[in-house]
Amino acid sequence: MIKVGIIGFGTVGQGAARALIEHREEIMARAGFEIAVSAVSSRRIHESDSAWLPSSVVRTADWREVISSPHVDIVAELVGGTSVAYDIVRAALTAGKPVVTANKNLIAENGAELESLAREHGVGLEFEAAVAGGIPVLAAIREGLAGDRILALDGILNGTCNFILTTMEKSGRDMADVLREAQALGYAEADPSADLDGYDARYKLAILARMAFGVPVQFDAISCRGITAIRAIDFRYARQLGCTIRLIGAARWQSNGSVDLSVRPLLIPCEHILAKVDGPYNAVWVEGRRGGDTLYYGRGAGGAPTGISVVADLIRVARDMRSGAVSRVPPLGFHAPAQSRPANGSSRMARRYLRFVVSDQPGIIAELAAVLARHSLNIDAVIQERGFERHSLPFVITLEPSSDQAVQAAIEEMKAFGFLREHPLELPIEEFTTAAKQVLGARC
Amino acid sequence: MIKVGIIGFGTVGQGAARALIEHREEIMARAGFEIAVSAVSSRRIHESDSAWLPSSVVRTADWREVISSPHVDIVAELVGGTSVAYDIVRAALTAGKPVVTANKNLIAENGAELESLAREHGVGLEFEAAVAGGIPVLAAIREGLAGDRILALDGILNGTCNFILTTMEKSGRDMADVLREAQALGYAEADPSADLDGYDARYKLAILARMAFGVPVQFDAISCRGITAIRAIDFRYARQLGCTIRLIGAARWQSNGSVDLSVRPLLIPCEHILAKVDGPYNAVWVEGRRGGDTLYYGRGAGGAPTGISVVADLIRVARDMRSGAVSRVPPLGFHAPAQSRPANGSSRMARRYLRFVVSDQPGIIAELAAVLARHSLNIDAVIQERGFERHSLPFVITLEPSSDQAVQAAIEEMKAFGFLREHPLELPIEEFTTAAKQVLGARC
Repeated sequence: MIKVGIIGFGTVGQGAARALIEHREEIMARAGFEIAVSAVSSRRIHESDSAWLPSSVVRTADWREVISSPHVDIVAELVGGTSVAYDIVRAALTAGKPVVTANKNLIAENGAELESLAREHGVGLEFEAAVAGGIPVLAAIREGLAGDRILALDGILNGTCNFILTTMEKSGRDMADVLREAQALGYAEADPSADLDGYDARYKLAILARMAFGVPVQFDAISCRGITAIRAIDFRYARQLGCTIRLIGAARWQSNGSVDLSVRPLLIPCEHILAKVDGPYNAVWVEGRRGGDTLYYGRGAGGAPTGISVVADLIRVARDMRSGAVSRVPPLGFHAPAQSRPANGSSRMARRYLRFVVSDQPGIIAELAAVLARHSLNIDAVIQERGFERHSLPFVITLEPSSDQAVQAAIEEMKAFGFLREHPLELPIEEFTTAAKQVLGARC
Repeated sequence: MIKVGIIGFGTVGQGAARALIEHREEIMARAGFEIAVSAVSSRRIHESDSAWLPSSVVRTADWREVISSPHVDIVAELVGGTSVAYDIVRAALTAGKPVVTANKNLIAENGAELESLAREHGVGLEFEAAVAGGIPVLAAIREGLAGDRILALDGILNGTCNFILTTMEKSGRDMADVLREAQALGYAEADPSADLDGYDARYKLAILARMAFGVPVQFDAISCRGITAIRAIDFRYARQLGCTIRLIGAARWQSNGSVDLSVRPLLIPCEHILAKVDGPYNAVWVEGRRGGDTLYYGRGAGGAPTGISVVADLIRVARDMRSGAVSRVPPLGFHAPAQSRPANGSSRMARRYLRFVVSDQPGIIAELAAVLARHSLNIDAVIQERGFERHSLPFVITLEPSSDQAVQAAIEEMKAFGFLREHPLELPIEEFTTAAKQVLGARC
């Protein structure tokens, strides 16, 4: 029997413990041996509902007791945050105990260091639950696609944003209203900024990209834009272009060996499978050089789904321990080829969607077009729905493929125009196949 | 270095070899060691294009040479079929060499026996590539969801049928016409019956169900219906019901411990993620008791994607060999709880779509309704589009939830009616959440 100590007994800790207890038979049958919870630690363990835990499980408020216990073989760090969690994971690895964690912040920030520590002590460090909750996507990339070269990866990595965007699209309601609904449903926090501003998705993209491309990724250097500027009208204009809008964490392998990374709302074609991901779901789309595209879809959050990913890691680590296998090398993906470096979303060419809200007057298009021309940006189309009031008129200009740099410079210049009622909204139009086609065309 | 002998050098054999050679660096980096092709066998090896293989690779027309070679650590059986392939896999396992295969027929028919043989000789037997080509779905079920109890599984498992159905839906063209296009594109064989009649999907469902539910599955006892009776008009009527039509391999865990299995075209709601799977793609949707639903999507066929799944298995087996781990126990999923038994699709209640083509005359609805009433089947709706000719008029009756048995008995009785221009088409209407809700409601 392999004994697990769970540190942190919130929704994910309880989810993992319940899965281990309620699915004990299935897990024994699939793993070939038993895995049991032997200790649980939480600062408020004595106030929490743990009556459903077997009486044999040690309950303590001191996480150090879990790590030092001779009855704990694997430590599950499920407290979240980065200060205490960092100490817990370091202490467990240093004590020679493998660690399973669901902590995206910790792995995105300190993963490389903790990986080295795990290797030094010859134990495993696994974190499937840190990305996309209940979807076994890290294992799919690391093992299922291990024989492929990954060219592109696009993830819907934040269920809060996806719920808000898809509800706006279906109902035509504006964001503030839908956000209140999301909060009432428990899909959004009281302070939703980490979700809406893209920072939560950025942590996850950093972990995925390191796994998929083997490049070292500094998560806070990834260009990141949130969804707060998007309005209901944008979905109507997007639809006219055959598109919808999603917050996408995107990574593109470049032929020079670097990887472009960005988190931002994008226009994506309605017929693409990612456009079909509705509500609080997550999905990761991966394009391989030989295997083509695959998609992994499921619940991105919640104690029960995330707990299933924690248990998958526990089984993985336990199997390695029992077989005497050294932990997977390297646990955090593969080593970067020397020339790999992450770029940060500025070098890619893309068609662009620019939405303006103006107080209507003659000459607006001419003035905007002049700025675009000065930056060598070619207009593809101008779209304007009828029926809006003249003092607050939304319309769209789309641009032919252009660089982020040129577009941002043009927008900066436009901000001086007095007829603008709000900052222009710029969204790249993602066409998905270009990067892959270029590489495949050149090599296959 | 782990050395692989490839037996069978068609599209999948070549796909696996190319991935091993072209992605050698990625594979070394991810696995932590090198995997190389050391021998290739094919009856026509000397006629085939193998100039791109390194000169060090042994080429032979005799598969026994590959198995007995001291330079082969793992055997990849990629010849297909069940006669020679069976001999190859038995010989390799008996010689103590692990086997990776892409052979769905062989695993569906002889998997249990070959599993025992592999265990007896203490070596691995892996077959990710046998189901859903380039999608790492077996690993996801066996490992990613190992901590969950799987309640339901629905797969689009045949890319040929999915291409035909989705093209009919989009274009309004009839099947014969779309089949010719599929054949021209290489998506359908000259003799398409194994695909169109559902037998190909049935092999794959048998393997998936054994992995997901741990029940022994006799593949040829699974009820199986193909798509040949579906007409373009059915998509229009389905759309009026908020549905589309897909060929689905379905498995449902029943609270009595049995598993319902069937392969058949179904009406599925347009908003369900499986309804978004278009063209020659495969997808497997899985509902877990705690983890909720996940989906795995990608290319179901083709030498390059399938080769990627073969390589994933080779890495898995090689890692176990190097770590000295005994092969995964049990390799074909988990042992069945004593009460488990597969049912064959007859016990489930579902709403039904009945489409008739009649030579119009007074009293048709009354006569059909009388038959339905005699079998205690309740009519939900009658739908008829305008504009058809009276001598060949298609219309639809939907039924409230009813058993397969009662509906089939009623249809049998209807066949005597002279006004029918063709056999009635019956399609269950899948609502997806019922089974899971029942179980979750009862237990959570």
